[in-house]
Amino acid sequence: MNKTTASSTQVAINAERLWRNIEALSSYTDPALPWTRRAFTELHQQGREWLKAQMELAGLKVEVDGAGNMIGRRQGRNPDALPLVTGSHTDTVMAGGRFDGILGVLAGIEVAHALKDHALELDHPLEVIDFMSEEPSDYGISCVGSRAMAGKLDATMLAARDHKGETLTQGLARMGAQSTDIPGVQRAQHSTAAYLELHIEQGPVLEQNGLPIGVVTHIVGGRRMALTFLGTAGHSGTTPMALRSDALVAASLVVAEASRRASRLNSPDRYVVATVGRLLVEPNMANAIPGKVDLVLEVRSDSDALLDSFPEALLAGLNAELAALKVQVSMKELTRSYVTQCDPVLMDAIETAASGLGYSTMKLPSGAGHDGVYFSATGPIGMIFVPCLDGRSHCPEEWASPEAVGAGTQVLLQALLGLDGGLGKT
Amino acid sequence: MNKTTASSTQVAINAERLWRNIEALSSYTDPALPWTRRAFTELHQQGREWLKAQMELAGLKVEVDGAGNMIGRRQGRNPDALPLVTGSHTDTVMAGGRFDGILGVLAGIEVAHALKDHALELDHPLEVIDFMSEEPSDYGISCVGSRAMAGKLDATMLAARDHKGETLTQGLARMGAQSTDIPGVQRAQHSTAAYLELHIEQGPVLEQNGLPIGVVTHIVGGRRMALTFLGTAGHSGTTPMALRSDALVAASLVVAEASRRASRLNSPDRYVVATVGRLLVEPNMANAIPGKVDLVLEVRSDSDALLDSFPEALLAGLNAELAALKVQVSMKELTRSYVTQCDPVLMDAIETAASGLGYSTMKLPSGAGHDGVYFSATGPIGMIFVPCLDGRSHCPEEWASPEAVGAGTQVLLQALLGLDGGLGKT
Repeated sequence: MNKTTASSTQVAINAERLWRNIEALSSYTDPALPWTRRAFTELHQQGREWLKAQMELAGLKVEVDGAGNMIGRRQGRNPDALPLVTGSHTDTVMAGGRFDGILGVLAGIEVAHALKDHALELDHPLEVIDFMSEEPSDYGISCVGSRAMAGKLDATMLAARDHKGETLTQGLARMGAQSTDIPGVQRAQHSTAAYLELHIEQGPVLEQNGLPIGVVTHIVGGRRMALTFLGTAGHSGTTPMALRSDALVAASLVVAEASRRASRLNSPDRYVVATVGRLLVEPNMANAIPGKVDLVLEVRSDSDALLDSFPEALLAGLNAELAALKVQVSMKELTRSYVTQCDPVLMDAIETAASGLGYSTMKLPSGAGHDGVYFSATGPIGMIFVPCLDGRSHCPEEWASPEAVGAGTQVLLQALLGLDGGLGKT
Repeated sequence: MNKTTASSTQVAINAERLWRNIEALSSYTDPALPWTRRAFTELHQQGREWLKAQMELAGLKVEVDGAGNMIGRRQGRNPDALPLVTGSHTDTVMAGGRFDGILGVLAGIEVAHALKDHALELDHPLEVIDFMSEEPSDYGISCVGSRAMAGKLDATMLAARDHKGETLTQGLARMGAQSTDIPGVQRAQHSTAAYLELHIEQGPVLEQNGLPIGVVTHIVGGRRMALTFLGTAGHSGTTPMALRSDALVAASLVVAEASRRASRLNSPDRYVVATVGRLLVEPNMANAIPGKVDLVLEVRSDSDALLDSFPEALLAGLNAELAALKVQVSMKELTRSYVTQCDPVLMDAIETAASGLGYSTMKLPSGAGHDGVYFSATGPIGMIFVPCLDGRSHCPEEWASPEAVGAGTQVLLQALLGLDGGLGKT
């Protein structure tokens, strides 16, 4: 076989094997709380033992690095070529789903299987990575493995403790990773030819547009802001309206206007979502005027400039109304993440692959974070989305059809083949 | 002495004795949670033993009726005259204040003291009542004693249990009241010459107007409505604004508009307050679009007609906006109470008494419920309000000055004297 053959559609994945593997790995779950396979638990470890065997069956040589990333490697024809990398993660949130994360890892293994089945050699080495703990772990840190690869897993994070007092370092050791090796985990800039990840969309856009493949343009940045509204608690019957300062009425103006403002700022070229997901009222009794409200406002966008101004402009626009309510509002930033651009060459490779397979596509941002945010420090990244039922994710109802995951995995394979042929050799 | 003397301002209360008694009775508190003297507790009972002694010192003959009301009686000159009744309650909410309730009982005792000190005989009998459990008790029932006097303490209520499984009947027995006597507790219509209660305002109106005496016009009625907003939970990053149905955004419109609507409907002749004091979000996480919100909307007014329409008109006015948000809203009534009118003759007596003492007054409704709501089944009622600091009540900071409570008690005495002279003898 030669490179021309490799790029053709004759290199088919085995969709049944892929589906069996999804069923097998997702069954490593806390039976009392499906589908739960928290990072650093015995279940996570057991799932990874199974995963290691699957990688080996697919012809990959497996290593666990100092940050707990499980990496399956396949040599390439060209000894100077940088690796093509794919993968995702096998940990879940509590009561999460059967596709988030594991699809990307198992699709990578299926790609390796298909290359082996067809006795195909790539120019580039191939790496399939199960990144350690993409979801927020019990130590309060997310993207543990990919952070380390970007050189951003620092000593403070390694010393973070879970509720039992165990440090992240100790947790990593339980998972077979020696944190003394973490400096060696960091990869250099320009050390990856391309990183391509398949993931369920976790939103409703592809499903609502009836499209099987999404080409991710950005991983959005975001800001989480803690807002506190201080009014005056009082008796709900005896305090006339004109003498109130009701913290919940003030908070309600912000909740409603955040939604309106985000809706208004969206356009075909601009993605922005604003959410007040968490809100707590004090004293929260039917007969007491709310004296205090705490809420978290989250804004995500593909524009860092928009993120820089959204919360502040929102409050400024409501200034007169809030002052009239005699409620004091304070705001502070809890977290900030920046927009990660997907590489145009990789986006083209996905579109070309999909087109060759007869799949229609659309471009869309990823509203959720992924390991690619950190892994982009090592080279260009891209993501392929497939639709999921009702756009739901991080819940037991999370679902993607065998056809959807098969299509996504076939596109992943074709795009990697295309990149293998099309990318320079360093 | 004769009736003319009795109506003069020479019959003075002893403000120092009154204040000492307030300090003494309020000291019957759970030391860990001042000021707490929950109905049916040992503290409540101990406070009542002290109270009984004070009633007897003031020349009152004390009885506890079948519903636990402690009644101190003083005979009148006219054997055919109906009783003049005053009082309030000595139980408190958790972490309540030092004035709510006990002021009215101790002012009644001080009136009896003053009559005794001045060797004054009234035409009418006088009753000073410590009503049993005005505040919501651990059995879930409020105004236990006054309900019974109105014939509205039914078998279902008597069988209600606290969290330890004790019934209200058993609780009453512990407090020395035999519930088999409850039918005899009920008083007939037109069996009271006048019921006059002194209470702190529990709101800020008198203080803000710099007035020492409030003449209550109504005890407001109210409706509590449970509203449920059903949207669709989803990922805060991956669900575009246009595809959301955010239950909290919908709830926020209702919270804000309830406040605006109530403010708009207020007038010098119309009191209405609307409050969303309790609101719960699900799943209440920063990265999840709220799928469900439960809240309690409370409306209180001196107009039953307004109460009949407020919640429904509020939702109808928001119908288009709520539909656009694709959020389902359901509403059901939790409780309904009706407006209780204060009697014009009693209001006049209060104003005349205050005026004679040089106190300026204003008319205002009571936004909180009181035993008078039920006791009004037995005859005309009136209430005297005195200002409390910052309008606060039902909290440890609740405060009324010695001058304020002294003024209110003197007005209570003068008004009762005026009524004794002015009311018919049956």
